[in-house]
Amino acid sequence: MEMLTINNVWMMVCTALVFFMHLGFSFLEIGLTRQKNTINILFKNVFIICVGLLLYYIGGFNLMYPGFEAGDAGFLKFAGFGIEAPANGMTPEYASAGYTWWTDFLFQGMFAATAATIVSGAVAERIKLGAFMTFTVVYVGLIYPIVGAWKWGGGWLHTLGNKYNAAGEIISEAGFYDFAGSTLVHSVGGWAALVAVFLLGSRIGKFNAEGKPQAIPGHNIPLATAGVLILWLGWFGFNGGSVLSADPAATSLTLVTTCLAAAAGGIGAFITSTVLYKNYDLTMFLNGILGGLVGITAGADLMSPNEAVIIGIIAGVIIVLGVALVDKLKLDDPVGAIAVHLICGIWGTLAVGIFGTKAGGDQLLYQLTGIGAIGAFCLISAFIILFAIKKTVGLRVSEKEEIDGLDGHEHGMDAYPDFRTNEH
Amino acid sequence: MEMLTINNVWMMVCTALVFFMHLGFSFLEIGLTRQKNTINILFKNVFIICVGLLLYYIGGFNLMYPGFEAGDAGFLKFAGFGIEAPANGMTPEYASAGYTWWTDFLFQGMFAATAATIVSGAVAERIKLGAFMTFTVVYVGLIYPIVGAWKWGGGWLHTLGNKYNAAGEIISEAGFYDFAGSTLVHSVGGWAALVAVFLLGSRIGKFNAEGKPQAIPGHNIPLATAGVLILWLGWFGFNGGSVLSADPAATSLTLVTTCLAAAAGGIGAFITSTVLYKNYDLTMFLNGILGGLVGITAGADLMSPNEAVIIGIIAGVIIVLGVALVDKLKLDDPVGAIAVHLICGIWGTLAVGIFGTKAGGDQLLYQLTGIGAIGAFCLISAFIILFAIKKTVGLRVSEKEEIDGLDGHEHGMDAYPDFRTNEH
Amino acid sequence: MEMLTINNVWMMVCTALVFFMHLGFSFLEIGLTRQKNTINILFKNVFIICVGLLLYYIGGFNLMYPGFEAGDAGFLKFAGFGIEAPANGMTPEYASAGYTWWTDFLFQGMFAATAATIVSGAVAERIKLGAFMTFTVVYVGLIYPIVGAWKWGGGWLHTLGNKYNAAGEIISEAGFYDFAGSTLVHSVGGWAALVAVFLLGSRIGKFNAEGKPQAIPGHNIPLATAGVLILWLGWFGFNGGSVLSADPAATSLTLVTTCLAAAAGGIGAFITSTVLYKNYDLTMFLNGILGGLVGITAGADLMSPNEAVIIGIIAGVIIVLGVALVDKLKLDDPVGAIAVHLICGIWGTLAVGIFGTKAGGDQLLYQLTGIGAIGAFCLISAFIILFAIKKTVGLRVSEKEEIDGLDGHEHGMDAYPDFRTNEH
Repeated sequence: MEMLTINNVWMMVCTALVFFMHLGFSFLEIGLTRQKNTINILFKNVFIICVGLLLYYIGGFNLMYPGFEAGDAGFLKFAGFGIEAPANGMTPEYASAGYTWWTDFLFQGMFAATAATIVSGAVAERIKLGAFMTFTVVYVGLIYPIVGAWKWGGGWLHTLGNKYNAAGEIISEAGFYDFAGSTLVHSVGGWAALVAVFLLGSRIGKFNAEGKPQAIPGHNIPLATAGVLILWLGWFGFNGGSVLSADPAATSLTLVTTCLAAAAGGIGAFITSTVLYKNYDLTMFLNGILGGLVGITAGADLMSPNEAVIIGIIAGVIIVLGVALVDKLKLDDPVGAIAVHLICGIWGTLAVGIFGTKAGGDQLLYQLTGIGAIGAFCLISAFIILFAIKKTVGLRVSEKEEIDGLDGHEHGMDAYPDFRTNEH
Repeated sequence: MEMLTINNVWMMVCTALVFFMHLGFSFLEIGLTRQKNTINILFKNVFIICVGLLLYYIGGFNLMYPGFEAGDAGFLKFAGFGIEAPANGMTPEYASAGYTWWTDFLFQGMFAATAATIVSGAVAERIKLGAFMTFTVVYVGLIYPIVGAWKWGGGWLHTLGNKYNAAGEIISEAGFYDFAGSTLVHSVGGWAALVAVFLLGSRIGKFNAEGKPQAIPGHNIPLATAGVLILWLGWFGFNGGSVLSADPAATSLTLVTTCLAAAAGGIGAFITSTVLYKNYDLTMFLNGILGGLVGITAGADLMSPNEAVIIGIIAGVIIVLGVALVDKLKLDDPVGAIAVHLICGIWGTLAVGIFGTKAGGDQLLYQLTGIGAIGAFCLISAFIILFAIKKTVGLRVSEKEEIDGLDGHEHGMDAYPDFRTNEH
Repeated sequence: MEMLTINNVWMMVCTALVFFMHLGFSFLEIGLTRQKNTINILFKNVFIICVGLLLYYIGGFNLMYPGFEAGDAGFLKFAGFGIEAPANGMTPEYASAGYTWWTDFLFQGMFAATAATIVSGAVAERIKLGAFMTFTVVYVGLIYPIVGAWKWGGGWLHTLGNKYNAAGEIISEAGFYDFAGSTLVHSVGGWAALVAVFLLGSRIGKFNAEGKPQAIPGHNIPLATAGVLILWLGWFGFNGGSVLSADPAATSLTLVTTCLAAAAGGIGAFITSTVLYKNYDLTMFLNGILGGLVGITAGADLMSPNEAVIIGIIAGVIIVLGVALVDKLKLDDPVGAIAVHLICGIWGTLAVGIFGTKAGGDQLLYQLTGIGAIGAFCLISAFIILFAIKKTVGLRVSEKEEIDGLDGHEHGMDAYPDFRTNEH
């Protein structure tokens, strides 16, 4: 009873911290975009939290953790609408137990909305609100839990490398590994961001007549910085809670690797960008921290501190190069979501096969399989959803609305009405 | 010992989260008002936290939890000035025990200041600072703990429906129920807000010559949004801590109902306001979330998730109608405090008689009794205090001060001196 | 096992809260300075967090807690680069045990960066970024852990008053006492701030031709206020975690004394500044809260609530007088760091000899010894480091850069590009 209560307290604390990440995302996204679209971005973020949690309650949780037999889950097995706690109120055996069913639901529900939030930043300043809301409902309500079931729900990616004896009993366990979601959360969001940015096109003025990218500076860097620090704080819960218990050794090592990777990611991006661009670029520093966090997420419980530092530094370098690559591909991602969540998500997932206690050729293969399968599924799903929206109600606001800002047209509000602004 | 320690850790975490709500209130209130009054509002909020906690230390705690015999408390029984822990350092038997006396004091102390904070938003931009401080001292120091003693201190509302045998022993327990304070905290603040807004009158320009309400837009919507998300985070502690232990089943269900009601409240207000006003109104969405949170607060431990969603949706609808009603009554409540805290506080308290494990006619009657008695006491007390201030030093700043903004006159400071502003 | 897990959960929560203080410091420092230097200040703060944690990992932790025999540590005993957990994963016997080695490292690592952060505020708006980063690396990487080892690492200040029998066994323990770092963290930062401010000189325009100080108002008071409330929240972990266990009696009393001192500090500064300057000065109120927090930090576990209130009120008075004194000495400290962290740090350390369970003449002597020894060491170290920087690469930006703002010159960025600003 004591152990259950402790585990449950820790998981509730982590749930609260993951919830708080939504403020981090909100601040980051508005901070790195223009003030004329602030209300719109905040509206999207608040919508995502509310509808994400409700959808996860209505069906997502049951789709993701369907109470299946090992290995055959995730192909739309579905435990029904709404959730009802088991008689004993505990999580069933496939979770590492030790906390309540309700805590399990709420912790996982807080994760669910994150995938759409990642997209929100990439498509900012030009997507129609209705289009985004429609996409969110389908992607968070359906795609995220299906992919989640493949691994966290005990599905085929979870059991990928299991060996069985003649009687069909497991004799050795292996499989795709993604501790807290470098792929299952961050890349799932990142792939959709990539598709959305491709289908939407770039903001007016992002690329000049020669196709060279133009900086469109974010309007509130203090809030963007606060967003990153809040996200870092939230990652204490995101990774710390993914231990699924308060086990002292596992949780504390996880927090150490998480924080060291974040710090190393920041320093890696800071040095890389200073060397390349001769400039102390705060945005790169901040995205480097996020890259380090995303990068450690897949294996935060498997790495030594030294390995965490190496993973973080590489993530920091990747961020700087990734942002340049996205620009070179003429993709317009206002907040750097593709570099942070997709590219560093892939890096972190691969790192599980290279570093840490699971490193090895087989594991690297499982990781590549997971990245490939989930990538293909997300790319195709996101494309179908977004393309359907584009061909029906349309994805993008009018040119006039984009130039004026979405706040006035969609919301009839101004984020900072008492201040004089320089429109651009 | 382990159980005590776990309970105490959880209660301390919850205490910290409730403390953090003061930043949420501060951000919400300044965000929804004009920049020229920002310093003044922040000053009021900071004052409330400090003086609220000190007053609760000096006398409030002993007034609210007087160590009484069941049923005869709250009529100004008073355990003396300052607090001294019992010999064993534990909370006495009327609390559900299992954590320390000091934690009990601090958790309850963090609640105490909230009542005045609610008023702060409603009276913003026109009340004299001295008048507000005087009101706060009396209301938080005296009225809040007296009302609290009626229920949480074990007083007459707590024992309202108890049945006794001939020997005077309790044979069945019943009574007014208010888990975490839909009435005891939110409505207590809301009633005073109503009286204060009535006595103060509306801000210059709020109603035009024909009496039609004019929008006075808030100056910093990002901070207002952050305020609501911080309040939601704080509610993890506000409701989660009101279990008064870390009991896994009770705390985790409470967090689930709390979060679902918040999400449903937001969606309810979003849909209602979109249908009524053909506009994606972020402020309504945010107030809907708060309405859902206030609405679930009285029965967060009694409701099923489905019931929490229903309570939240209704709260969201109530918010939109409530804000319109307050406008129609020519009351000027800049942040929507009356709709959120008073009307949804009443709704949440009634919902305990309609939904959940205590639902029934008797319970509904107890709930109505509590709402009525506390409403009457708060209305009368607030009126006496505020009317006395009005007739002596005055409640309202001069017209010139109101037009110029309170920051320059009362504080000689500007909240954003480096920015050019559009005064209005 | 349960107790270990509970302690570890509490320490992890506290670690997260101390981490979050960096957002508090960031907001406070940018809020109280001009918008044209915002990026620069944020960059410094983000750099400090990342490099502080990495340096503590590389060497600081092993320098501060070298695994020494009692009494002979801190003179650069050094357990080697990088850290490796003991075989059992637990903290060795000199910590009060009951949580993991990794948690110990991370909690202490979060403290380490704070010393440089304190300096950051005092030197804002005129120090070269490279100079500050160099200083930070040496001061956080070397000076902070050496001083820490003297007391928290079990060094000579810790064993100062121990009495031994003929066999060399301890027969009574005494020594310099600093519970959570009024001196070891706050004054260590404060002394360096003093030296830095002295060597840097005041900002252009801070003192007029007659030498009278001129107000240079901070550009974002809402964020400054948020910073203080976040710092207060963080102090739940800073002091609460310094118990080094979840012991219910000790942690909950510590939180009560911490919060009461904060509240009393705010009220003390509010009343003092209102009486002296006839003005409701929000900045003084906020710094009073911080002063109360710094003041209680050395003895938060030793004081009764009444004593905490007294210590807080005195700290609040000291803040108002301290800020005036710093001005009178023609030192330019934009955020009041010297008054808050140095002067109130000294006050809090002395208070351990005057109030609470250790009060007495001997203790006061130990406290004075600690203050003096650490003050001398920090003054000299900071002077050597900063003087060397000044004479080589230089400490201060050019006059043109200072007038234009550091953001454009060092970072090529603007914190608020969409807003029109009043440069000054």
